[in-house]
Amino acid sequence: MKKFVYPFEEGKKELKLLLGGKGANLAEMTKIGLPVPEGFTITTEACIKYYDDNKKIDEEVSQQIADRLKELEIKTGKTFGLKENPLLVSVRSGAAVSMPGMMDTILNLGLNEETVEGLKELTQNGRFAYDSFRRFIQMFSDVVLGIDKHNFDIIFDNQKKFRNIKNDSDLTEEDLKTIINEYYKVVKLEAGINFPTDPKEQLFMAIDAVFDSWNNQRAMIYRKAHGIPDDLGTAVNIQSMVFGNMGEESGTGVAFTRNPATGESGVFGEFLLNAQGEDVVAGIRTPLSIHDMKNVMPEVYDEFIRICEILEEHYKDMQDIEFTIENQKLYLLQTRTGKRTAKAAIDVAVDMFEEGLITKNEAIMRVEPIHIDQMLHPNFNEELLKNSKLIGSGLPASPGAASGKIYFFPEDIVAAKERGEKAILVRKETSPEDIEGMINAEGILTSRGGMTSHAAVVARGMGKCCVAGCSEVMVYESKKEMKAAGNVYKEGDWISLNGSTGKIYEGNIPVTEINLTGKFNTLLEWADEIRDLGIRTNADTPKDAKNAVDFGAEGIGLCRTEHMFFDESRIIHVREMILAQNVEERQIALDKLLPFQREDFEKIFEVMEFRPVTIRLLDPPLHEFLPKEESDIEILSKDLNIDKEKITDIINDLSEFNPMLGHRGVRLAISYPEIYAMQIRAIFEGAVNIYKNKGFIPNVEVMVPLVGLIKEFTIVKKTIEEIADEILEENSLTDMNYKIGTMIEIPRAALTAGEIAAEAEFFSFGTNDLTQMALGFSRDDAGKFISIYKEKNIFEKDPFETIDVNGVGKLVEMATENGKKSRPNLKVGICGEQGGDPESIDFFNKVGLDYVSCSPFRVPVARLAAAQAKIKQE
Amino acid sequence: MKKFVYPFEEGKKELKLLLGGKGANLAEMTKIGLPVPEGFTITTEACIKYYDDNKKIDEEVSQQIADRLKELEIKTGKTFGLKENPLLVSVRSGAAVSMPGMMDTILNLGLNEETVEGLKELTQNGRFAYDSFRRFIQMFSDVVLGIDKHNFDIIFDNQKKFRNIKNDSDLTEEDLKTIINEYYKVVKLEAGINFPTDPKEQLFMAIDAVFDSWNNQRAMIYRKAHGIPDDLGTAVNIQSMVFGNMGEESGTGVAFTRNPATGESGVFGEFLLNAQGEDVVAGIRTPLSIHDMKNVMPEVYDEFIRICEILEEHYKDMQDIEFTIENQKLYLLQTRTGKRTAKAAIDVAVDMFEEGLITKNEAIMRVEPIHIDQMLHPNFNEELLKNSKLIGSGLPASPGAASGKIYFFPEDIVAAKERGEKAILVRKETSPEDIEGMINAEGILTSRGGMTSHAAVVARGMGKCCVAGCSEVMVYESKKEMKAAGNVYKEGDWISLNGSTGKIYEGNIPVTEINLTGKFNTLLEWADEIRDLGIRTNADTPKDAKNAVDFGAEGIGLCRTEHMFFDESRIIHVREMILAQNVEERQIALDKLLPFQREDFEKIFEVMEFRPVTIRLLDPPLHEFLPKEESDIEILSKDLNIDKEKITDIINDLSEFNPMLGHRGVRLAISYPEIYAMQIRAIFEGAVNIYKNKGFIPNVEVMVPLVGLIKEFTIVKKTIEEIADEILEENSLTDMNYKIGTMIEIPRAALTAGEIAAEAEFFSFGTNDLTQMALGFSRDDAGKFISIYKEKNIFEKDPFETIDVNGVGKLVEMATENGKKSRPNLKVGICGEQGGDPESIDFFNKVGLDYVSCSPFRVPVARLAAAQAKIKQE
Repeated sequence: MKKFVYPFEEGKKELKLLLGGKGANLAEMTKIGLPVPEGFTITTEACIKYYDDNKKIDEEVSQQIADRLKELEIKTGKTFGLKENPLLVSVRSGAAVSMPGMMDTILNLGLNEETVEGLKELTQNGRFAYDSFRRFIQMFSDVVLGIDKHNFDIIFDNQKKFRNIKNDSDLTEEDLKTIINEYYKVVKLEAGINFPTDPKEQLFMAIDAVFDSWNNQRAMIYRKAHGIPDDLGTAVNIQSMVFGNMGEESGTGVAFTRNPATGESGVFGEFLLNAQGEDVVAGIRTPLSIHDMKNVMPEVYDEFIRICEILEEHYKDMQDIEFTIENQKLYLLQTRTGKRTAKAAIDVAVDMFEEGLITKNEAIMRVEPIHIDQMLHPNFNEELLKNSKLIGSGLPASPGAASGKIYFFPEDIVAAKERGEKAILVRKETSPEDIEGMINAEGILTSRGGMTSHAAVVARGMGKCCVAGCSEVMVYESKKEMKAAGNVYKEGDWISLNGSTGKIYEGNIPVTEINLTGKFNTLLEWADEIRDLGIRTNADTPKDAKNAVDFGAEGIGLCRTEHMFFDESRIIHVREMILAQNVEERQIALDKLLPFQREDFEKIFEVMEFRPVTIRLLDPPLHEFLPKEESDIEILSKDLNIDKEKITDIINDLSEFNPMLGHRGVRLAISYPEIYAMQIRAIFEGAVNIYKNKGFIPNVEVMVPLVGLIKEFTIVKKTIEEIADEILEENSLTDMNYKIGTMIEIPRAALTAGEIAAEAEFFSFGTNDLTQMALGFSRDDAGKFISIYKEKNIFEKDPFETIDVNGVGKLVEMATENGKKSRPNLKVGICGEQGGDPESIDFFNKVGLDYVSCSPFRVPVARLAAAQAKIKQE
Repeated sequence: MKKFVYPFEEGKKELKLLLGGKGANLAEMTKIGLPVPEGFTITTEACIKYYDDNKKIDEEVSQQIADRLKELEIKTGKTFGLKENPLLVSVRSGAAVSMPGMMDTILNLGLNEETVEGLKELTQNGRFAYDSFRRFIQMFSDVVLGIDKHNFDIIFDNQKKFRNIKNDSDLTEEDLKTIINEYYKVVKLEAGINFPTDPKEQLFMAIDAVFDSWNNQRAMIYRKAHGIPDDLGTAVNIQSMVFGNMGEESGTGVAFTRNPATGESGVFGEFLLNAQGEDVVAGIRTPLSIHDMKNVMPEVYDEFIRICEILEEHYKDMQDIEFTIENQKLYLLQTRTGKRTAKAAIDVAVDMFEEGLITKNEAIMRVEPIHIDQMLHPNFNEELLKNSKLIGSGLPASPGAASGKIYFFPEDIVAAKERGEKAILVRKETSPEDIEGMINAEGILTSRGGMTSHAAVVARGMGKCCVAGCSEVMVYESKKEMKAAGNVYKEGDWISLNGSTGKIYEGNIPVTEINLTGKFNTLLEWADEIRDLGIRTNADTPKDAKNAVDFGAEGIGLCRTEHMFFDESRIIHVREMILAQNVEERQIALDKLLPFQREDFEKIFEVMEFRPVTIRLLDPPLHEFLPKEESDIEILSKDLNIDKEKITDIINDLSEFNPMLGHRGVRLAISYPEIYAMQIRAIFEGAVNIYKNKGFIPNVEVMVPLVGLIKEFTIVKKTIEEIADEILEENSLTDMNYKIGTMIEIPRAALTAGEIAAEAEFFSFGTNDLTQMALGFSRDDAGKFISIYKEKNIFEKDPFETIDVNGVGKLVEMATENGKKSRPNLKVGICGEQGGDPESIDFFNKVGLDYVSCSPFRVPVARLAAAQAKIKQE
């Protein structure tokens, strides 16, 4: 005879297909000696048979259920339908694959007019007993009899109204009895039957309902969508109920096997005597610490500690458990991996390795990259946050939390900072001219722009909190005010930003401090041992570079030279250069810029020492460097002694419809070779100076941006070689090695990578631009529709944050493959924003990139993610 | 004994490797009976031997040359160095592959102090004889003796100065003798030898020089760059000189075997008696018509006619020949395929097929696509053009020629047209609001934008002349003037545009009429028989559609619905729709637009009948439809009774940094599904009306633009199906078939084409956008650097005009392949501008597209190009 019903102690986790996920789990817990309330599982085969038999439970199956039920009564000492000591059970569906739409849990099955009185006796709590009964009727009617919940809600609410009561818990036993009587009427009216009083009848009806739910609409659609076979069937789990409110020898509680906040070893949790279910969480009585159990019920406590040890030994992770004590007997109702703070996650992982519970790889996998990120940024005090008014929500552009007074202009931020105020910069969008304001602000809020807008990129580089593209906030810069959630906030008003969630709050909310533990570094050192991917940083200043090296960066993957152009002392020369009417005039301005750039590079070389420094030649369109405001144009006109109208003409002439696809990157070098020539000179003269003054030769990689056509690259490459070799020969430094490579950020470059690699010594994927062009999404404009796209599930993740594997990823893969085929020692990296995104890092590792480069504050995250990627691939 | 020297009559074209290209050619001409001046070829093997023997001509070779020279003297009756009847020869290099850097031609070798006097006698022209001698010395000294030309130029110029003479031809025989004496001195001084007087010595020195030139710097670099082997060697061609200036029995002329202007059959050309070389072209005497020869020298004439027949029979094409008559003996100096006008090209091709000279395929290949284009557009009168002042040059955006008074605003154009003036619209760039002005203008000139800018695309659609992106012209719209070539042109001034060359002229230049012959249509009908590619058109109006059908379009490949939105009667509702604050308001405006759109479609269906009509749903970003000028906003504010500030706010809010990568295409449908819903309703209600009123069911293909992600498409597809099916069911027209497909214009769509084809029934490559994104070139901005790119040879062709095969082409190929793999009956077309470009059509044919779609006036070009593509592939 086939076995259609398994007591928990006869199953095991390997029987998942037969017992369903939940059944196999309960069996496994029982098997390893955990005190799980007794019960049994009706197999998925019984479900299949049910359908084979035209939705009837076969007699044989029915008999096996009855037999197991009898056993259950014996084991628990309780009896179905017996008033004095009634057996109550829960009924749960449980397929091999978890699936929405299946039947919900039914608790307290076995209650009727008799047994409810028994429950009242046992718990000495009539309200509890009748409320349990009411809930049972309601749930049973809904899922088994198919009666609309709404019918019951009306009755319940009417009774509250009638008694002028606000909280459900204020309903008395009598009220509940009244409600139950009304419920009976509904059942009679809607289902045409009396509510079943025989527990066995209740049970079989519930089992039928579980089986039926396997083929309900929602489940079928879900299976179809996910390719789950229709003939797997579901199992049914029947488990005896236990009660913690049976007196002072009973109780209930929740606990963690370690402290989920600090990660400290040792059981952590609380419990209540003579209580049931949600009483602990509800906070009506003050619970006791788990350690007080030692005094109250020492034997139970010992058992509890033993169980926690079994749990950690078995699950190899911190567990979050719910338990009930029924008359001195401990039951484990649930165990799951415990949620924890970032600090706890890291400390527990390191501790567990040291305790010999898990391997280093497992420790690495145990910590989520977001945990690393959280450790690096301040956060709001959770308690205070609860009482704060949310006034808007934007993109979580740069993590961390910040409070401050709002200001709308960079110069006002600087002034506020000088007055000792904390200030938040609020703008429609930021531009390179706002840098000073961004440096001095606690945080940045913009109403436009996406995850890779100027504000977002720069803020992440600084490790500064930023919420970007918050279209709910209307910014009126000229009026120095903003509108949000129907209120007007003026200059000087306090707001608080959470750059990790994108939320904006009114007022001043205190933030927590950053505190990096030794275990944090230990874990990252382990990650370094494991990972293959190199980790570099995107850094434009010596300060950023230093920061990144401290965070473990192994080089600079992207040093943007244009950010240097915006410095107050240089921008005038930059503008002079742009407004030049001929090459000679332009050269004069460039000659003035040369010493500045040379010094910039020297300082960065000094910080980076032997590590590679990838310097990208000028990338943005020239108009980005020109003033926009009338008044600024006037000043410039006076400073340079150029007619105002002429400047305006040039600005208009340089303006572009689609600057992202315009005259920038290597295209500038084709039109104005002298600009790159100056930059190249600055790089190599800087390198020579470092050699002369510091005694080491910097590890320079010159990168040409926006290459789409091979000749663009070869033209610039020739210039680089000529200038570099001239300078190095003049200074007898011909043994300095340097590399010349290119960004791969134009789809065409990715498509013709083999040809480009024949000339370029390295590739660096500029995934911001590559995504922008491959998807046709302007990163500055996409904010307007990207949220709808997420909402409608057109894509799951913002493709600027996480690489679009099927589209952009295909280009990255093709280009890497063809590039390395054409030049086997080609170095391939990525310096877009995705370089710091764990999911993307996993992809980059898979397709064989050599390194990722990200903003300094993402370096630790990338180190962990790279190690995890390696482990996953093994 | 190996044969190192071949008389022309012993060679043939198959011996190209041995005789070089030129030698094989001369041999072939001789072989088919053409009276080529006698001569012989020294083989490439002799050259190789020369190098093997350390740059010495072997005795054996030397002997063979001498033998052939002797033979030549006998055949020509002339003798080397004999004053009375001197043999003069030309010496020319001739490798198997033509190559720059090789030795130039030396003419009149054999001249010395004696023979020059003989030549004077024979021609009765001392000036001619001594000038020939002077030239010979100069050329010989340069290429054989390696003396800098400059030395001779100084002497020559000094003599002119001394004699106060302007033109070379004014130098007398005496002058030339003086010059020659000075030349001798230079040779002595520079080369250390006396100028060689022995013709044989001259000849061998020249042969050495030809062989040496095989390994000169320029030739070696060229061979290396083009992968030509270094050991091919060059041949040397020695040919006797003939003279048409030996009296009234001699002469020289040029002729075509048919009329190169009209294509008419029969020899066409002119000649001069007693004349030599360039005399005919120089125009000193009025030449005679070739037919006058019949009277002057009837036998020569008959011979001439016979030769023309041989030529056409042999070369199967109209020949352009140079001939000389020396004492009643006709010599053919040169024959090559004759250049011809568009009309001649077409007529000759059709005639030659009918004469049985060539096949249909050959006839098709004989006509260049540009010829077809020229036939469809007016052109300037060539003569009058010569005297016109060129004032600038832009992109040849839409072919044809136009003259008119300039106006800067569309309304001024309309007014001018009403006054009966011819007007040219001049603007920085055009926008859809300028349509009325464009319709009423003779031609359009813009200072910005590329080959696919608004002005260019619309003008091509209209078949109207347009010069775009002419950055040399400064347009000051507000002042109603433009600056060009240093002059200011004001409203009302005349200019003339050539849209085929991009040139702009001052003043009014008359244009030629269009006159399509029957042969034009015959040729295109042959093309239709041959081609595989379907030819559709891009047409937005019934008029364009009609035009295109008349030109042979087989369907509409792109009907842009947005152009309909700009009509005066609708734009107000479009704006109302955009400014709507919620879906209800938007629906109200859309309901007003519905009848307009429905009628638009009905009219187009009516024209197109059974042919497929691909309708693209709304594509441009909404802000394109909103007014830009303050005053227009004010009017709109009054019209719609919406606060002006509010409108400005919305305009600002909708504005985008990179509109090409912004909120447009299917993205609009995701945000505002009701817009597409209206358009879909209009399409299918229109189809129903056509069925009811005209009795046929239109062949509708609905196209979703800018799809990059499969879900974008499936969401819209579902809407289309729902609305279409509802309308068709309501009207009992369920047997109407329609297709739903998508543009492939985003690189990601091309990369994931397999996935998209599973849902889409057709693809249409939008190569404008695809090029824009794959190359990262904004088509509206690229004008600024694209000319430098062409200049520096970074690419040869504007990638918006001709498909970039290695980049964009790879995407097209991948997408076509993967699309058809996923759905074998997937229809694949292209509706970008490249759909009318012959080189691109060749590529599209090769990768297996089903059709190309282009503007109406390109349809005939595309028909021919498609046939040629097919023939080339066979």
